[in-house]
Amino acid sequence: MTSEISHQQHKVSFSSPRGFLTTFKSDLKETFLPDDPFSQFHDEKPHHRLRKGIQYFIPIFKWLPNYKFSMFRFDLLAGITIASLAIPQGISYAKLAKIPPIIGLYSSFVPPFVYAVFGDSKHLAVGTVAACSVFIAETIGNLVSPHDDPALYLHLVFTATFVSGITQAALGFLRLGILVDFLSHSTITGFMGGTAILICLQQLKGFFGMKHFTKNTDAVSVFRAVFAYKHEWRWESAVAGIIFLIFLQFTRYLGSRKPKLFFISAVSPILVVIVGGVFAYLIHGQDHGIEIVGELKKGINPPSIQYLNFDSKYIPAVIKAGTVTSFIALAEGIAIGRSFANLKNDQVDGNKEIIAFGLMNLVGSFTSCYLTTGPFSKTAVNYNAGAKTAMSNIVMAVCMGLTLVFLAPLFSHTPIVALSAVIFSAMLGLIKYDHAIHLFKVDKFDFCICLSAFFGVAFITMDMGLMISVGLSLLRALLYVARPATCKLGKVPNSTLYRDTEQYPGVAAIPGMLVLQLGSPIYFANSNYIRERILRWIRDEQSKFSNSEEDIKIEHVLLDLTGVSTIDVTGIETLIELRRTLEGRGIKVAIINPNLKVMEKLIASHFIDKIGKENVYLSVGDAVDCCKLSLQKLKPNDAV
Amino acid sequence: MTSEISHQQHKVSFSSPRGFLTTFKSDLKETFLPDDPFSQFHDEKPHHRLRKGIQYFIPIFKWLPNYKFSMFRFDLLAGITIASLAIPQGISYAKLAKIPPIIGLYSSFVPPFVYAVFGDSKHLAVGTVAACSVFIAETIGNLVSPHDDPALYLHLVFTATFVSGITQAALGFLRLGILVDFLSHSTITGFMGGTAILICLQQLKGFFGMKHFTKNTDAVSVFRAVFAYKHEWRWESAVAGIIFLIFLQFTRYLGSRKPKLFFISAVSPILVVIVGGVFAYLIHGQDHGIEIVGELKKGINPPSIQYLNFDSKYIPAVIKAGTVTSFIALAEGIAIGRSFANLKNDQVDGNKEIIAFGLMNLVGSFTSCYLTTGPFSKTAVNYNAGAKTAMSNIVMAVCMGLTLVFLAPLFSHTPIVALSAVIFSAMLGLIKYDHAIHLFKVDKFDFCICLSAFFGVAFITMDMGLMISVGLSLLRALLYVARPATCKLGKVPNSTLYRDTEQYPGVAAIPGMLVLQLGSPIYFANSNYIRERILRWIRDEQSKFSNSEEDIKIEHVLLDLTGVSTIDVTGIETLIELRRTLEGRGIKVAIINPNLKVMEKLIASHFIDKIGKENVYLSVGDAVDCCKLSLQKLKPNDAV
Repeated sequence: MTSEISHQQHKVSFSSPRGFLTTFKSDLKETFLPDDPFSQFHDEKPHHRLRKGIQYFIPIFKWLPNYKFSMFRFDLLAGITIASLAIPQGISYAKLAKIPPIIGLYSSFVPPFVYAVFGDSKHLAVGTVAACSVFIAETIGNLVSPHDDPALYLHLVFTATFVSGITQAALGFLRLGILVDFLSHSTITGFMGGTAILICLQQLKGFFGMKHFTKNTDAVSVFRAVFAYKHEWRWESAVAGIIFLIFLQFTRYLGSRKPKLFFISAVSPILVVIVGGVFAYLIHGQDHGIEIVGELKKGINPPSIQYLNFDSKYIPAVIKAGTVTSFIALAEGIAIGRSFANLKNDQVDGNKEIIAFGLMNLVGSFTSCYLTTGPFSKTAVNYNAGAKTAMSNIVMAVCMGLTLVFLAPLFSHTPIVALSAVIFSAMLGLIKYDHAIHLFKVDKFDFCICLSAFFGVAFITMDMGLMISVGLSLLRALLYVARPATCKLGKVPNSTLYRDTEQYPGVAAIPGMLVLQLGSPIYFANSNYIRERILRWIRDEQSKFSNSEEDIKIEHVLLDLTGVSTIDVTGIETLIELRRTLEGRGIKVAIINPNLKVMEKLIASHFIDKIGKENVYLSVGDAVDCCKLSLQKLKPNDAV
Repeated sequence: MTSEISHQQHKVSFSSPRGFLTTFKSDLKETFLPDDPFSQFHDEKPHHRLRKGIQYFIPIFKWLPNYKFSMFRFDLLAGITIASLAIPQGISYAKLAKIPPIIGLYSSFVPPFVYAVFGDSKHLAVGTVAACSVFIAETIGNLVSPHDDPALYLHLVFTATFVSGITQAALGFLRLGILVDFLSHSTITGFMGGTAILICLQQLKGFFGMKHFTKNTDAVSVFRAVFAYKHEWRWESAVAGIIFLIFLQFTRYLGSRKPKLFFISAVSPILVVIVGGVFAYLIHGQDHGIEIVGELKKGINPPSIQYLNFDSKYIPAVIKAGTVTSFIALAEGIAIGRSFANLKNDQVDGNKEIIAFGLMNLVGSFTSCYLTTGPFSKTAVNYNAGAKTAMSNIVMAVCMGLTLVFLAPLFSHTPIVALSAVIFSAMLGLIKYDHAIHLFKVDKFDFCICLSAFFGVAFITMDMGLMISVGLSLLRALLYVARPATCKLGKVPNSTLYRDTEQYPGVAAIPGMLVLQLGSPIYFANSNYIRERILRWIRDEQSKFSNSEEDIKIEHVLLDLTGVSTIDVTGIETLIELRRTLEGRGIKVAIINPNLKVMEKLIASHFIDKIGKENVYLSVGDAVDCCKLSLQKLKPNDAV
């Protein structure tokens, strides 16, 4: 045995386990503070720390003092551009949420101010989202009809916004942004696509100038309703709608082809609204079947805190609408903030961003706004228009304030069909065929997750679609964990490397030995599988040799634990049991390169004592060399 | 660039991805058939295959033809021993389930026959389990009182057994034994311990010969009830109980110390029952406050299929009782079958075993039996008594049949206090202090999972305890996945190995480079974390160097993907984004040794095209050498 140890070139570290508090603190930190937000406070004087702390929690104090007029030029332009988008989108999405259109305008006034103070992202533009608007209408509309009792319905929407705000703020403070990560890109792609289809179908009502429609949101009901009320179709409305849509799609196409023409595509929605409004006013559109938005009062947001309604009859639906939309809004807002920050090499603190969204919606629910976040379309426009800081949000809010005070009544002439065209066009951009095709090519399971969200949303209900898709994602996460990959290693010719024999057909297995690489954590959910799998590798290997002429038995099983990130007690027990089983069959077990955490647990559970320190190696090469030596000792005539 | 490639000693395999069907088939196989049960059917002639197939599905055809009389000696002894245990345990556990004691005896007659035919394990002894008995009483007893309507209650217990059987058979046929793996050892230890405490407390009723008691099962209610009816305490009963308990514990102690005396501990329960019965009969125990079991009819199991009750009023509780107990029973039965098979180097096919349990309970529910499985205590006795095959179960069943036909009425004199002592003693063995201490030492989170099951069961309800504990286990599984370990690698002196710098303080980091090892799958649940973590590593590294004299910037980030078992589309997008971010800062990214699955997806998603094949290396050593070369090219004066 001693010769074996001396043969080992590289020493394995058996240092005694770190203290519980050390590991516990580091685990907590990795779980809740992976981005280490307080690293900037180290090594600072107290008053510096305080200033940095305030700047950390209220980012406006960080960027405003360094704000330069040269930046303001860019922010002004970007702010006006997104304001021009906020007016048609605000009115349209409010219609999707079945609340008065003015609420949509209010929602682009107060929340951007709040975000500019607390938000971390430089390019994010605040606004309402179509998907959340529809979800709110679906969930709360099931309980209270927006037509029969519009006041109560509106108050419940404010309450749902309040719930969203509380949920988001709590998630951020508790640093549970991790939960948002469980909405995968595939789920979001499918969900957005499904919602877009739904909303497009709903717009057929506006296109055809219909007065009656279904309350249901699934594709089949909506499609049926379009034809059920065929006698209400107005060709004038349809023609206007198609012209608007062609214009919008054409400018979008131009914008995407020639970046210089980007501004045309950015302002085309407001152009459609203005041209449509003037046109409807001049020809007295209402007499020709062209519906208009109707009354829009002058004046900025009235307070709405007194309307929050926590009646136990409505609270379950309100909580459902609030929490689900808060997650969808976060998934969109955080992802978008992050990806634009990445383009500019900035970093966004997810949990702080979540708090900013939460505060924005809390304040919003007190001031007649409904759910806002950082929608993709608006943020992209803001970025492309050259926004440098959150000042563009302030500019937008000021523009919206001016619009509310002076111009609001003018927009009452906007034809519904123009809004439908704006929504339709925006939604078409959300159906990402290419992304779905990419998913299909790269990962079929991801594609299924995406499709399940798409069809679930389009044909069942939005929450069912979301739940099925998230459920599938989690199932997959658990399957990864329950069925980790193992592979057999062989020696790469002319090197000291050992690699997967399936991946690298040229590598040579070592006679009498089986080198297995285990991946993933080993623990209760997969320890049985891992044991069975290792035993199967051994059976397969032995049956292979039993067919051949040579009579070489497996005498060593070497387990490469490099990829084993952690292990639990059930996992350790399985290894102990496995070793006992194999020793009973005359097969020796050695382990290779357990990492720090795994080694600590193996030492604490006396596994290392049982297996012997001489059977723990630092590299596959060391282990193979030692085992070869012992094979040669047993059979001195066989030169292995 | 070409010189870099030529410098690479070892070629990375970029073979085009395997076909979808190939990977899909292999994934399905790993998920549902990890133990490859059909491997034995390869390369066989059709009639051999048929015979092997029948032997596979009905194992008795495999072992019975080779059965020898020499084995029967052992099986006979073992069978009689476990029968002697089955009588007191059967009666006692039936009392726990609040059903007539005779049902407990029936349950050791039919099910062992069924198991002997379909079961795979050689040492497993069939019997009822205390934990499931109490759970059934708790769940169904909440709906129908076993005292007020004993017939309906009993019929619902049969129905729950039927549901258990169906559930188990379905799990086995669908090869979903994987679900049982999600009950970790820690959960089971805690759950069993908590149940044992509960049951011990309940036995105080029998010990003190009380007539009134609480319906609740939580520790506080039971403890309160014991003192609430203090006036019913009978000292005669308590004295007898303590004597019995001391005897049982003493023989158990003897048996554990001296293996030769094992038989004394195995038969001590039946001795207690017989001695107690004779004693109670002689002194007319009932006049002295010593309650007896009462009526036990002669005759074997009557059919009960006509009693199965699927009334919609009761079905939710019945389904709950049936499914939860089926899982508990499986967790115990499968784990025990496996561990005893391991001791003898046999293998047990989990899913086949589950089908056997399912059939056993289905047939049991038709023949007046309630839930049975392979309880630990009985199986250990069977193994220690020398059982060689499932024949010992047949011997036990025959003994039970004889008892039912001839001796049953004799056991009607058994004092309740003797049964309480038998239960109490069995339960004390289930509280594994040492295991809990082991958990505490090795893994604090496992300890918490165990404690939550223990306290949940003891102080809330059994199902809540189980749910909390399983929930914590799953949370942990997801946390592992959401927060995978990453570490920085450095070069081990005088070798080509690269290891964790934290674990091996002697290893040297390479100036200008950051080598990171990623573990676990990279996918939606952790991709944000991994990006943030890598960026933090780079920040930390750069701030370290900025403090020192030298001005060495990180120019290369090398990601060792050896431990990355798989990747999804979100994960790949994160890598692409990360690379763009880092290239923007002038940092080059290379990846090292992606495994087969990961490489296939990286190729399919064009990641490899984007990063360039020259930036994919087979080993850390290769990558570091190449990057050193490019560093030297940039700064010819710096000898790195």
